[in-house]
Amino acid sequence: MDKFSRLSKGKKYVYALKIGQLPILSDGLQIIKEIKKITDINIICDLKLADAPFISVEIAKEVFAVGSWGIVVQGFVGGQVLSEIISTVPELKIFLVTEMTHDNNQYKGLTYKNLKKLIDIALNYKVWAVIAPGNREKRIKKIKRRLEKYNSDVKIAAAGIGLQGGNAINALKAGSDFLIVGRDFPEVIQDIIKRIPKSALSEYIKEQKKQRVSSSKVKKIVSYLAIIKYVIEIIRKLWGY
Amino acid sequence: MDKFSRLSKGKKYVYALKIGQLPILSDGLQIIKEIKKITDINIICDLKLADAPFISVEIAKEVFAVGSWGIVVQGFVGGQVLSEIISTVPELKIFLVTEMTHDNNQYKGLTYKNLKKLIDIALNYKVWAVIAPGNREKRIKKIKRRLEKYNSDVKIAAAGIGLQGGNAINALKAGSDFLIVGRDFPEVIQDIIKRIPKSALSEYIKEQKKQRVSSSKVKKIVSYLAIIKYVIEIIRKLWGY
Repeated sequence: MDKFSRLSKGKKYVYALKIGQLPILSDGLQIIKEIKKITDINIICDLKLADAPFISVEIAKEVFAVGSWGIVVQGFVGGQVLSEIISTVPELKIFLVTEMTHDNNQYKGLTYKNLKKLIDIALNYKVWAVIAPGNREKRIKKIKRRLEKYNSDVKIAAAGIGLQGGNAINALKAGSDFLIVGRDFPEVIQDIIKRIPKSALSEYIKEQKKQRVSSSKVKKIVSYLAIIKYVIEIIRKLWGY
Repeated sequence: MDKFSRLSKGKKYVYALKIGQLPILSDGLQIIKEIKKITDINIICDLKLADAPFISVEIAKEVFAVGSWGIVVQGFVGGQVLSEIISTVPELKIFLVTEMTHDNNQYKGLTYKNLKKLIDIALNYKVWAVIAPGNREKRIKKIKRRLEKYNSDVKIAAAGIGLQGGNAINALKAGSDFLIVGRDFPEVIQDIIKRIPKSALSEYIKEQKKQRVSSSKVKKIVSYLAIIKYVIEIIRKLWGY
């Protein structure tokens, strides 16, 4: 598939692959098993889980059973969901949604107004990462400050980088550990790479050339998002943030 | 299937069938088409939708395409999701989750604290119904008062009736229009019927006997919930609330 061959091109920079609701609703959770087999990348199952604790735990078990590495949970439903998922499937990494990229308060969404409370849920239940609005650097900084205040090792994944309006470099400067990028992620990577001194990239580029990932038949991957780590590590080291 | 034959027994009292995330994740959205074909009941697709507007609209389109009558959406993501779903698939009835049954404030969930704001989102976007915590009559009353204050025809569906702790009669007295009942719904109906004068039921029972719904092969319906209307109508008429 075209989308998937695009993914292969950037595989070197991908830390995990976030599979959204659309492909899962189309084919069922088994699609994750297939994608995992072909890509051999960590899979984050992004259902924006927001159900009652009993159902959420059953879903988390299924999500883990098909080979997912992580799961996206809405912070809004509170800590009981997290607490029960953690005790039932402790291996599953939780990505907790705090403020959503679209919630700019105009339509009275409640993630924008409750950012501090949502960060505190992440802190209390020691999730693996929070998902922050990649299109608002000030809010990423706010999250970073609060996490640092409590010496937390909860990571920040900035959503909506690229086509959706978030700027990769600014999101990194604001404190993001990972970038969540949509289907334009090869372009986003290229844009980041342009800004890195060429010499520093040589090792990475060599490795990338060695590894020729062939594009493969993955049917009906309607949407995917990639989380890029390696690029960030280089930038951090070189630019000192 | 056993669960499905239980459903057939109470079909007369079922206004809609709410299909949860588990069967959908297992088989994909097509399961709704199958259930719809066998039951010929309104289907409410309960994904507790809480994604960004662009993805939510795509999901709503798919949900409608497989024959769903309604969809459950989380109120906290704000009105943009609702506004875009309504303009894209206006036929799809929106059930907006306000306060969740499990959110008792102990785990810092944010639906309990934001009930008023969530009702106001339902009012502003004229959703078909709100989903209220069936285990808390005071909260249902609060929702009812606010809807009545604005002469709204938004309906109230009380979640968690039966095994999950909500009492059918009390939830009705508090102002619910529909009850959302889990797998024990034949028992819940029986319990309600016991409290209705027998003469008043005769017409309904006759009709029910005429209609012999055979139990059918629905594979892997892991969870379902039924919304009961007819019983409520009888109770309302007789008891005057």
